Amino acid sequence: MKILILNGPNLNLLGEREPNIYGNISFETYLDQLRKRFQQLEINFKQSNHEGELIDCLHKADKEVNAVILNAAAYTHTSIALADAVNAIKTPVIEVHISNVFAREEFRKQSYIAPVAKGVITGFGLQSYALAIQSILDDNN
Amino acid sequence: MKILILNGPNLNLLGEREPNIYGNISFETYLDQLRKRFQQLEINFKQSNHEGELIDCLHKADKEVNAVILNAAAYTHTSIALADAVNAIKTPVIEVHISNVFAREEFRKQSYIAPVAKGVITGFGLQSYALAIQSILDDNN
Amino acid sequence: MKILILNGPNLNLLGEREPNIYGNISFETYLDQLRKRFQQLEINFKQSNHEGELIDCLHKADKEVNAVILNAAAYTHTSIALADAVNAIKTPVIEVHISNVFAREEFRKQSYIAPVAKGVITGFGLQSYALAIQSILDDNN
Amino acid sequence: MKILILNGPNLNLLGEREPNIYGNISFETYLDQLRKRFQQLEINFKQSNHEGELIDCLHKADKEVNAVILNAAAYTHTSIALADAVNAIKTPVIEVHISNVFAREEFRKQSYIAPVAKGVITGFGLQSYALAIQSILDDNN
Amino acid sequence: MKILILNGPNLNLLGEREPNIYGNISFETYLDQLRKRFQQLEINFKQSNHEGELIDCLHKADKEVNAVILNAAAYTHTSIALADAVNAIKTPVIEVHISNVFAREEFRKQSYIAPVAKGVITGFGLQSYALAIQSILDDNN
Amino acid sequence: MKILILNGPNLNLLGEREPNIYGNISFETYLDQLRKRFQQLEINFKQSNHEGELIDCLHKADKEVNAVILNAAAYTHTSIALADAVNAIKTPVIEVHISNVFAREEFRKQSYIAPVAKGVITGFGLQSYALAIQSILDDNN
Amino acid sequence: MKILILNGPNLNLLGEREPNIYGNISFETYLDQLRKRFQQLEINFKQSNHEGELIDCLHKADKEVNAVILNAAAYTHTSIALADAVNAIKTPVIEVHISNVFAREEFRKQSYIAPVAKGVITGFGLQSYALAIQSILDDNN
Amino acid sequence: MKILILNGPNLNLLGEREPNIYGNISFETYLDQLRKRFQQLEINFKQSNHEGELIDCLHKADKEVNAVILNAAAYTHTSIALADAVNAIKTPVIEVHISNVFAREEFRKQSYIAPVAKGVITGFGLQSYALAIQSILDDNN
Amino acid sequence: MKILILNGPNLNLLGEREPNIYGNISFETYLDQLRKRFQQLEINFKQSNHEGELIDCLHKADKEVNAVILNAAAYTHTSIALADAVNAIKTPVIEVHISNVFAREEFRKQSYIAPVAKGVITGFGLQSYALAIQSILDDNN
Amino acid sequence: MKILILNGPNLNLLGEREPNIYGNISFETYLDQLRKRFQQLEINFKQSNHEGELIDCLHKADKEVNAVILNAAAYTHTSIALADAVNAIKTPVIEVHISNVFAREEFRKQSYIAPVAKGVITGFGLQSYALAIQSILDDNN
Amino acid sequence: MKILILNGPNLNLLGEREPNIYGNISFETYLDQLRKRFQQLEINFKQSNHEGELIDCLHKADKEVNAVILNAAAYTHTSIALADAVNAIKTPVIEVHISNVFAREEFRKQSYIAPVAKGVITGFGLQSYALAIQSILDDNN
Amino acid sequence: MKILILNGPNLNLLGEREPNIYGNISFETYLDQLRKRFQQLEINFKQSNHEGELIDCLHKADKEVNAVILNAAAYTHTSIALADAVNAIKTPVIEVHISNVFAREEFRKQSYIAPVAKGVITGFGLQSYALAIQSILDDNN
Repeated sequence: MKILILNGPNLNLLGEREPNIYGNISFETYLDQLRKRFQQLEINFKQSNHEGELIDCLHKADKEVNAVILNAAAYTHTSIALADAVNAIKTPVIEVHISNVFAREEFRKQSYIAPVAKGVITGFGLQSYALAIQSILDDNN
Repeated sequence: MKILILNGPNLNLLGEREPNIYGNISFETYLDQLRKRFQQLEINFKQSNHEGELIDCLHKADKEVNAVILNAAAYTHTSIALADAVNAIKTPVIEVHISNVFAREEFRKQSYIAPVAKGVITGFGLQSYALAIQSILDDNN
Repeated sequence: MKILILNGPNLNLLGEREPNIYGNISFETYLDQLRKRFQQLEINFKQSNHEGELIDCLHKADKEVNAVILNAAAYTHTSIALADAVNAIKTPVIEVHISNVFAREEFRKQSYIAPVAKGVITGFGLQSYALAIQSILDDNN
Repeated sequence: MKILILNGPNLNLLGEREPNIYGNISFETYLDQLRKRFQQLEINFKQSNHEGELIDCLHKADKEVNAVILNAAAYTHTSIALADAVNAIKTPVIEVHISNVFAREEFRKQSYIAPVAKGVITGFGLQSYALAIQSILDDNN
Repeated sequence: MKILILNGPNLNLLGEREPNIYGNISFETYLDQLRKRFQQLEINFKQSNHEGELIDCLHKADKEVNAVILNAAAYTHTSIALADAVNAIKTPVIEVHISNVFAREEFRKQSYIAPVAKGVITGFGLQSYALAIQSILDDNN
Repeated sequence: MKILILNGPNLNLLGEREPNIYGNISFETYLDQLRKRFQQLEINFKQSNHEGELIDCLHKADKEVNAVILNAAAYTHTSIALADAVNAIKTPVIEVHISNVFAREEFRKQSYIAPVAKGVITGFGLQSYALAIQSILDDNN
Repeated sequence: MKILILNGPNLNLLGEREPNIYGNISFETYLDQLRKRFQQLEINFKQSNHEGELIDCLHKADKEVNAVILNAAAYTHTSIALADAVNAIKTPVIEVHISNVFAREEFRKQSYIAPVAKGVITGFGLQSYALAIQSILDDNN
Repeated sequence: MKILILNGPNLNLLGEREPNIYGNISFETYLDQLRKRFQQLEINFKQSNHEGELIDCLHKADKEVNAVILNAAAYTHTSIALADAVNAIKTPVIEVHISNVFAREEFRKQSYIAPVAKGVITGFGLQSYALAIQSILDDNN
Repeated sequence: MKILILNGPNLNLLGEREPNIYGNISFETYLDQLRKRFQQLEINFKQSNHEGELIDCLHKADKEVNAVILNAAAYTHTSIALADAVNAIKTPVIEVHISNVFAREEFRKQSYIAPVAKGVITGFGLQSYALAIQSILDDNN
Repeated sequence: MKILILNGPNLNLLGEREPNIYGNISFETYLDQLRKRFQQLEINFKQSNHEGELIDCLHKADKEVNAVILNAAAYTHTSIALADAVNAIKTPVIEVHISNVFAREEFRKQSYIAPVAKGVITGFGLQSYALAIQSILDDNN
Repeated sequence: MKILILNGPNLNLLGEREPNIYGNISFETYLDQLRKRFQQLEINFKQSNHEGELIDCLHKADKEVNAVILNAAAYTHTSIALADAVNAIKTPVIEVHISNVFAREEFRKQSYIAPVAKGVITGFGLQSYALAIQSILDDNN
Repeated sequence: MKILILNGPNLNLLGEREPNIYGNISFETYLDQLRKRFQQLEINFKQSNHEGELIDCLHKADKEVNAVILNAAAYTHTSIALADAVNAIKTPVIEVHISNVFAREEFRKQSYIAPVAKGVITGFGLQSYALAIQSILDDNN
């Protein structure tokens, strides 16, 4: 089974910036841990700061992977285009957030993606990704 | 390690009503599955339709369990009192929802509890509870 | 045929308080009149100031009566939990109000229950209950 | 005793259109049933798609009938002029709706007429008119 | 010089209804007073409860009179069509109100007509019309 | 094939008033051009300033024409009754506007009719009507 | 009979600034005209840019004049304190505006003073003051 | 003279939780101080996390005590039912808050109870209760 | 110990106007009572209708008194400048209101000052000032 | 004459996804039909999921084509940048939508582009593009 | 060249209060630095806590200085009167703020003055004034 | 010292389009002037219409330059992602605008970037950039 982890804007800075909110290890380091823990899976990974590129990735993922774990970061709150892409493809998409977005600015409470995602996992730090993978595995048992 | 699963209003009807939204097995049946899967844990369970009783339970849980998994159902969207209780206790509380509340009525998008919860897991059916337990286990490793 | 009249918060004060709005006879006295007028029916009655207890009653009513007449009073405007209970049960529920809630404070114009009730009867004084019963009788002819 | 049933815009199409919402008998057919059931009453009837004509009718009714049953349809939600007319006359006016307007579009939840009507009966199909008549009869006993 | 006084919905009831708000003489009686006071003017008068008829009158007035005094009553607050008519004609239109609409319901504070009227006179009882005429006379000196 | 062009309030003034917004030829002149261009069609035409009359026309059109081109002018933004009529009839209705309503006052951005129309054509001057006819022709090829 | 004309902030610039909105004669010049036209009256005049001073003037006027004509300019839209002063005194206060405030910025449509004023005269240029005086004279006949 | 102090949800945790907001002594300890200071009074005390129980207490208090001091905590902001109870009884009710609710989350600025309470005392820590008692004593001198 | 009582706009009219809301004794008379009751205190007093003067007083008070009791009247609801002054000084400021502002117009529910005040006392008539003094005394024991 | 058809995000999926909303032929197939029908035109075509690329295209189009037909899809509702580009270029831009966006989610009713477009054509399926071309041809006759 | 620096409410406390937000030197000290740096200019300075006095100053400045640098502090967000004064005079006015008002309370994001100012400089500490002066110098080269 | 000027969407058209708003010289020409005036600085420059590319540039700038001057144009009002990037990097970012955005459409008053920028300079034409550079120089003295 193949899955794609798709990270949105500014998440390439993970581990370097604002460690009080986002933790202090890079996503690449965390990805190694994930791949070791879930060796039965092929875990692809892509990060982009470009809304359009994230949409392109979702379209391509539809034909290539069994599930997408999407952390759209700030685009979560502003991008109807990304939400339309999630809705347009058949592959299930799980929305994750590292921080508890509900405990931050008011505008982070709105998600265009959530209503068309399979489910949402928010606030467990990097562990949110592991839980999303777990949900995919459970779903396929 | 002890955890408490605390279910709010109308969740006693699980399995009987609206199976298209909430699935068709009772929570008790699902609880058996959970206990089998997570045998290392003592999983307590309480359901109540009374806002005040849910608050009482949270206060008591603070001294008795290591974590609470709270599905406050409709009170999620209206109860500041319940959110205050979550905030007042030291035991971490994880908010879960069976259905994808973001894909339903507008008023279900607001959660008073989410900003004071440790994290939120929404939309994975009954599996949301298993993921919440998984998050607690990961956190204690 | 059995029906349940379910009265919400502060309606136990009927007849004693604010007679200019709610009339000056107690609900028990009015209930006697109703039972005399509709002798072919078994009319059960329950009043509670507790949101949770009203939900419990609705759940129980689902198995015991043919229709519920619900005056949720102030909970009409704030309780999604009660509305979820109305929606979850199969027994039809008719929403009634003694006073014309539309002629009072702005916040009394919102009803969470109305969209999931069978119908709404508002503003006819205690007679609202008789009309609700009449609607049940007509429906079963 | 004389009463007037006053129907607003598009209600002339009753029975022909959207039977899933409005039922499939014409109002004229239903009116015959009503007159048979309430033979002690003289039931006048008027339908108009013109806001101004409905106002004219209310003014005239003030001198001619004992009560008005008004289904203002879409004008319920937009016409302050009609509400002013209801308020200006002494004859009591009862607002009725065939469908449960609270379960439809958001803009149908607002009624300018309700605050100045004697009472409101909503969602019982054509039976709403019979209940309104019943309320008038009870009131005059 | 010719002017048209154009009265909107429910103003035909003037003098009969709600004398505490609208005074207790009929508009016809007041019109006689006006005509005596301003004998140099030809004062035409029209009242209608029909929004469309008021629009027709405004169109016709454009070719026939020097100024219009418009009390659109409830249509003031809801009719963009009437405001468009006022805006479309070249004859100046003065908006008047008998009562102080700003001291009544919130929805009476909005006027679609005011932004396209020459001026607005509100709250002087029937005298509002005399002041409007005075403004026309002053303007033509 | 028969179509009806139905024009709402103030559109009788076309060509005389505000030529910078609405152009400077009358609708009758334009209608001649349309009939010459689309000789295969019988094009009926009706203008009214009365909301109720526009509703009457839509009801009648349902039985007489194959499609309606509706420019409801100001009623577009305020008339739920007209929208209900569009929704109630089977004949497809195309909403047109001469000016670009989106570039004008905020309140002209709301259309009650658009959600129940077949399509909307806005801002092409009188040519909007020709495009609407073209859409009907294409649809019937 | 004595009256006070009380002008608010920036009205001391009348005649010098923005003549397209406010005309090009100073208020003092206009005042001379007013006094000539209404010789039977003693017309006092005060202008201040200070909210507090305007309040002081209203308090003092209560004991000294028969009526106040108040053009509170920008304070109309922001000063509850001024409105409270109008409401607190017994002398009637008439609100006037030179320009048509309803045709300008959205925030100029709100008046805290209007609900507690005797009446409002808006948009007749400086003539608004003459009409206000006329209303006082009529009222005392 | 008898008074009732009625404390709402989560106030049983006083002294244990969030001492930076609520101080660090339990309410029972504080109650001893109050009783010593106001020995001429019989001070009853009740705390509940249940909205319904608080309503029951208010009803009962109406017949038993001379005044109620109500700290409804989170229910202040959400419970119309509690406000209706305050309004329904004749015994005066004084609303108190320990913390300055106006300096916290936006949703704590709304109080359904305040408009029907005799007065409100907010932000003086536990001393708020003593001030409320003082107000009752002053009122009865 | 020295305190300053600072009264805002229109409060100089106390005792003369609207006795049903504000009582019928002047503030000076009440001040005598206060000084007699709290002889251990030096109670200064200042009233002004000028927002700027109230700010000046607060600045000066910072160096001269131990606490300020501020009834900002209408400025409570509109003056960020006054709130900034309260926040800028070190002397504690207690907000008081004579009437229950929460039971009046909607716009009186907003207070810019409350979030930066030490506490708020509302609705006890003139007694509100005595309670505020009591709170200062208690605080200094 | 040259025109550019510019399609926004997710429109590359046309024909594959959600055929109930968007039809079941690919845009390329439809483009062939368009080119056959309008052989006198050179029809360029570009689709991109990237907001920035769409802006780049509009800038370039300004120098190369006579008109642009823009279906900005989801960016219609969120992109002020795209609207600024439409406004900045001299080439006329026609906004088209395949589906009736007014009949879908509330957030699809807002268009930043419409106020600066020449006109808008919505809801005619793929035919919307043909109508847009027709409008360009008519405009150049 | 002469310029006026005009400071609004509470800015007289600069250097004494809240140094974390406003720095810890007094404005007079800073003014000396400014005058040394820009010796070619005559820099006048005025601070007032009175809205009316700030308006008076702006009127006077119109005839006396070449430019005004205005820090209206809290009045920025509430004073339409001050904005009207800025708009009424010909001398250009530059709005400055010491702190980044956009990073503080929501209500500080609104400026009535900004739309009528020449430009706005926000958040550079006291240096904001120097930048404003620089902009005036550049403008006059 | 190195700085980066980063220009957002449509700013490549500077000098060509809407010269009444944006002036009529290209940014490149202006850049030459800037470099001559501030020869002690290395001024890098980048313009992009792509939100993602602007984010990439900010990330890269964090390691390469001492300050960023950002004119995000339309993205100012819609891009949380860009604001997150500004917040994530350590290099100070100054927000500039050529036109007075507060004097244009309502939606241009909102800036997601301002709260996380060091300061904001708005409305001085191209000179806004020079002032931003000046602020950096002052800051480093």
